[in-house]
Parts: sequence; C-alpha cells; structure tokens
Amino acid sequence: MIASKYLIGIGIGVFLFGSVKAQENYKDKDTELVFKNKQVHEVLQVNVDEVKFKKKPKNIVLLIGDGMGVDHIFAGITANKGQLNLQNFKSIGFSKTQSADDYVTDSAAGGTALACGKKTSNGSIGVDENGNTLKSILEIADANGLATGLVSTSAITHATPASFIAHQPKRSMYEEIAADFLKTDIDVFIGGGNSFFTDRKDKRNLVSELKEKGYQMYTDLDAAANVNEGHLGVLTAPEHNPEYTQRGDMLLKASDKALEILSKDKDGFFLMIEGSQIDWGAHQNNVSFLTGEVLDFDTVIGEVLKFALEDKETLVIVTADHETGGFAVVGGDINKGKVEGGFVTGHHTGCMVPVFAVGPGASEFGGIYENTEVFNKMLKLYGFTK
Amino acid sequence: MIASKYLIGIGIGVFLFGSVKAQENYKDKDTELVFKNKQVHEVLQVNVDEVKFKKKPKNIVLLIGDGMGVDHIFAGITANKGQLNLQNFKSIGFSKTQSADDYVTDSAAGGTALACGKKTSNGSIGVDENGNTLKSILEIADANGLATGLVSTSAITHATPASFIAHQPKRSMYEEIAADFLKTDIDVFIGGGNSFFTDRKDKRNLVSELKEKGYQMYTDLDAAANVNEGHLGVLTAPEHNPEYTQRGDMLLKASDKALEILSKDKDGFFLMIEGSQIDWGAHQNNVSFLTGEVLDFDTVIGEVLKFALEDKETLVIVTADHETGGFAVVGGDINKGKVEGGFVTGHHTGCMVPVFAVGPGASEFGGIYENTEVFNKMLKLYGFTK
Repeated sequence: MIASKYLIGIGIGVFLFGSVKAQENYKDKDTELVFKNKQVHEVLQVNVDEVKFKKKPKNIVLLIGDGMGVDHIFAGITANKGQLNLQNFKSIGFSKTQSADDYVTDSAAGGTALACGKKTSNGSIGVDENGNTLKSILEIADANGLATGLVSTSAITHATPASFIAHQPKRSMYEEIAADFLKTDIDVFIGGGNSFFTDRKDKRNLVSELKEKGYQMYTDLDAAANVNEGHLGVLTAPEHNPEYTQRGDMLLKASDKALEILSKDKDGFFLMIEGSQIDWGAHQNNVSFLTGEVLDFDTVIGEVLKFALEDKETLVIVTADHETGGFAVVGGDINKGKVEGGFVTGHHTGCMVPVFAVGPGASEFGGIYENTEVFNKMLKLYGFTK
Repeated sequence: MIASKYLIGIGIGVFLFGSVKAQENYKDKDTELVFKNKQVHEVLQVNVDEVKFKKKPKNIVLLIGDGMGVDHIFAGITANKGQLNLQNFKSIGFSKTQSADDYVTDSAAGGTALACGKKTSNGSIGVDENGNTLKSILEIADANGLATGLVSTSAITHATPASFIAHQPKRSMYEEIAADFLKTDIDVFIGGGNSFFTDRKDKRNLVSELKEKGYQMYTDLDAAANVNEGHLGVLTAPEHNPEYTQRGDMLLKASDKALEILSKDKDGFFLMIEGSQIDWGAHQNNVSFLTGEVLDFDTVIGEVLKFALEDKETLVIVTADHETGGFAVVGGDINKGKVEGGFVTGHHTGCMVPVFAVGPGASEFGGIYENTEVFNKMLKLYGFTK
C-alpha cells in the first residue's frame, strides 16, 4: 500500500490540472479520493439458478450505469460492506465499447450502440456515421406493440436516454432531441430536462403538445404518485437532477413508477434505466460521488431484480456504456464501508465493461463481445427483427 | 483524450517516485506507457457452446495471470488487433481478492486462497493465519491418484506456484519452499529457481535428492524435449526467467511438455500454469512489458484450450490472484495493435478480478465470489473432499 498512499497525495494536484478539458460539461467539485459510507442498504440474497424463469423474456429492463467499470462496482461492494444486489447476477460478459471513430467512446456513440446495434461516431445520437436514422430497441419494441419507458437521473435528453428515442447528429442538440419524444409512442419517461421541452428557441411548448397527445405531464414525481396507467412524462428538473446526496430516492421512485405502469401491458415492455451520474463522479475524480451513485443505482437494481424474480418473464441486464476515470480501488476496508480510490484520467477509457444478466435468456450474455451485441441479443430474445 | 494526455506526461514522474517501495523486488526499468505490438498471434475461433464436453472434469488446468485485471486483458485484445484466445471463453465470473489481513492482497495470500481455499495473511504460503498447514488442490489431487504439475515463468518457488505445493510462513523463504517440493509426489514442474535447489545455506543439493527420488532433472527445456513420461523437473534459470522479449516461447513449450506428460495419467491431472510477469510489468508501470506478457500468456491459453477441445473432459480456468497497477487503457488503436495506458499505483489494488472458464463445469464459475470459491468449485467438480 505504500506506493498507492504516495499517489493519493500527489494525485489531487495532477487531476485538477489534467482534467479541466474533459470536465468542462460538468459542475466543478473538489477531487475526493476517500469515501466512507454511512448508509449501507440491504440487498436481496437469492440463488437465481433455482428460480424457474420462463424460456423467453416478455419484458426487458436494461440498466445502464454510465461510466461504470469493474472498479466502480467494486467500490460499491466495498462501501456497502461486501454486498450489492448486483452480486446476485450469475451470467456475466464483457462489452467492447469502441465507437466507429474512436478507441474511447463517448456516451452518445456508446448509447447508440446499445440502443440501436450500430457503431457510430462519437457525439451521434441514434444515427449512423453518415447521419442515417437507426431504429432503436425501444422503437422496435414499440412497433411490436410493447410498452416502453426511459428513466434517468440526468436530463432525459442527455446522450444515454436520448440514444433510445432520438435521432440527431449531435448530442448537444437537446431541444431537437426533446422534440423527438413527440415522434414515438413511448409510454413513460422520467428524468430531468424540463427546460428543453418548454424554454425553447422555436417557442414550441412540448409539454403542452405532449398533453395534447394524451400524456399526463408532471414536474414533481410525488404529484404523479397516483398515476398508474396511460402515458406519463415527469420532468423533475430544468436540466439534470442533482447528485445522489440531494435528490433522495428519485431514481428508485421513478423506476418503480415506470415498472408499475409498463407491466400493465399484456404484450410486454422495454425499459431503460440509467444511473447517469456514476460517470460524472468519475469525471470529477471524486470517489464519494461515484461510489454514492453506484450505491443509489444498486438499490434500483435490487428493485428491478425483485420484480423479475416475481414476474419470471423479465430479463434484467446491467451494463455500462464505457468506463470513466481509469478508476482503481487502491485501498479500503469492507467492514467499515471505506473506499480509497485513484484515477488515471478525468475522461473515459477504452476498457471493456461488464454485462450482468438475470432472467430468461440471461445465459446469452456470457463471453466477450462488441457493445452492439447487447442490442442484437435483446432483439433475438424478444424475437423481433430490425 | 485531452485529460489523459496530460496525465501520461505527468505520470512518469509520479510513478517513479511513488512506486519505489513496491517495486523493490523487481528490476528497475523505465516507465513506459505506450506499446505497439509487432507480433500478432493467431487465435482459435470456436463456439464452445457447440462442443460436447463430458459432464464432469477429469482434468483441470488453472491458468493464473499474476496481476491480470480487466484492463490488462483489454490491453492484450487491443495489442493483438482485437482478438485473444481468451475471447472464446463464455463462462465468466469475478473473484474477490482480499486477504485475511489486508484489503489489498499479495500473491502469497492470493495464491494460497486459490490453491487451498482459505484466506490467509499476506506473505503466507499454503498456511493459514496461525501458521497451520493447508492442503492444496494439487496435494488433494495427488492424494486421489491424479498426476500434478506446476509451470511458471518466475522461479517455481515464487509465491504463486509455491502456494500450491509449499507451506511456509513467509514467501521469501525460497530455500524452504524448494525443499517442500521433495515432500510431494508432483509429476512435472517447470520454471526458474535452480539456485534455491542447489546453492543453499543448508548445503543440500535438492536436484540430486530429486533425482534419487526418480525425477528427471534439467536446466534446459530443449534438453528435456524427449522426456514424455515419468517425473520431470526443469529449472530453466537460477532465479526468475527473463521477461517475454528474451525468453522466447518458454512458457508455451513448458506448458506443452506438462500437458504431454500429465495427460498420460488415466486418473486425470491437475496443472497450474502462471503468467508470472504480467504483474511485474504492471509494478513497473510498463505497458509494453505487461501487455507483451499478456500476449505470451494468451498463446498458452490457446494451447490449453486446443487440448481441452480435443480432450472433452478438461476444465480450463483462467484468472488472476489480484490486479496490479490500477492500470487503465486510456487510448489505443486496435487496427494498429497500439495500446496507451496509465497507472494509479506501482502496487496491487483491491479490485475483483475476472475468472474465465471453458469445459465440464465451466458454468459454475459465473457470478461474483471470494477467491477461495475457485478452490471450492474445483474440489467439488473433481468430486474430492478436503
């Protein structure tokens, strides 16, 4: 541990200097390399091999921990005193995240690969390298009569959720991405980003337009508590939601609400839930921020897993779009929930990221494969074609 | 990539300063953060799901890439232009590497956990925290009539191979560890470490003693080429073998020789093969060294996989004892076999490491579990008790 202790001290200066450019889209915060968890959450303890799942999934829930590499997960395991809901997943693979134009993907190309099964250029949302529109798994599910949903702690127009519903050449085109929500029949979407729907250059009020289409629109998740069917949009913040310390159990409540409504569709559903800010904690080289976000994300994984264990025909997939930070758990104490971390960069890295699966078809997710295969496997298991 | 480029420059100074202590057992070498591979090796392309393996393994080959975390593997994939033999493995899990007395294990406690199924204190070889002797999977296999073997590029008395055959409170007790080779009936051992057998404080010549026991003893692997049965020991260097650039295909030849002899035992065999110097490359924060060692190790994985695919009753497990370096692939070019890396530390980290399996019982290795479970799973699959 001697070497890493030296590095923790030195690292602070290095990363503040080195990561200015990469972090320009994220709010400033001091680098923090030690986290001591004071809120251990209870986890499910189940042997999934003994659960009699149906042979094929009717529903798929894809949980994306943005920027969540193996060390981020292990920081979560350490902080939660040795246990995470994710540890119930037995089928594990690795997803290779390279984009069409870069060894190191961004969340737009990474999201598009998972959503649409095609490698594209960094920055592109739901379009290929030449700008051609790609069909996403959400859109294909919708076209096949399934209910669909998106949930994130970021703006719902941010790269990852956007990749499942929008088609724009640049991830920064938030207002155009918001307008794309009108072009589908998505049943439930919950996240931040209200301003991109209402405070727009083109003066359109998309919330009004969505209401005209029949959506029940809210800005407060609690106010939507009694909505349990139909089309629902909840835009809980003007842009992104605050980080885990300030937003309470927003992601858990949002995911529960989405499951409640979507599961009423007899034809099945597709739901993507993003733990958006694991990435931001890593960009900031902030161990507390990233680890806290992993723990928050894991409570949602537990909730979705519980649903799948009862439902028996829901496939649950947990993965990431890329690794962020070149993060490493250099020390810690599992009994105390304490994590000591270090970072190589303030940006993303090129490493493959883990894929965890439970439920019908979970065994398909073993091995090492391109991120586009996650889409292909979902498509095949649903029994749909592009 | 901007942030990581800053860091590459800064990292050199940091790591030379920060990793002096951790590297004191390893020869000095300049930190190197970029590797361009000029020797792409061919890999097997097989769908292991279509291979009709027997239900239970008669033989187990455990391949340990010392210090090999997920990024080390991905550096290998990148350097080998997108393909490794390891990518044929579909059953994947994660092993938690914490030792009995430290969040960050060393190779002695890590090796002992894999070999003997018990967490012990860092530095301990084949004994528990109180110094009590533990039975290793190699010794249990031997007691059950199986042939056994150890192969490494380090001295065969180094922590990882030692954990499978020796019982000493300190990993540095190389001469005592060498003497423990006389106490078993191991069939084949190939690695460095000749001096610990012949140039000893107690004036014993263990090579002579081994010969008296019936061993065919060599210091040159080529000289042993015609030995294809009986007991064989090849001690190819006074201490460690040189790194991959200078030792040729020593590990491949040694592994082939071990497989040739051990597979003649009708009762089956246990073989541990270590890619010892992946760890050393990472300790030195040298991307070329560690990646070259991963590639060398992968050629051996391919050879063992080929054997298992023909044999149908050999379980092949590839894992690591721990991660070294907090290594991250921050950039690269798969078409050119170019890897750009960075390190958080010159020491080991606490992250879980991947476990890959092919063959009878491979599906047992999914999920996240303690490193001691690798031993337990092997024991169960063989059908042995402690």
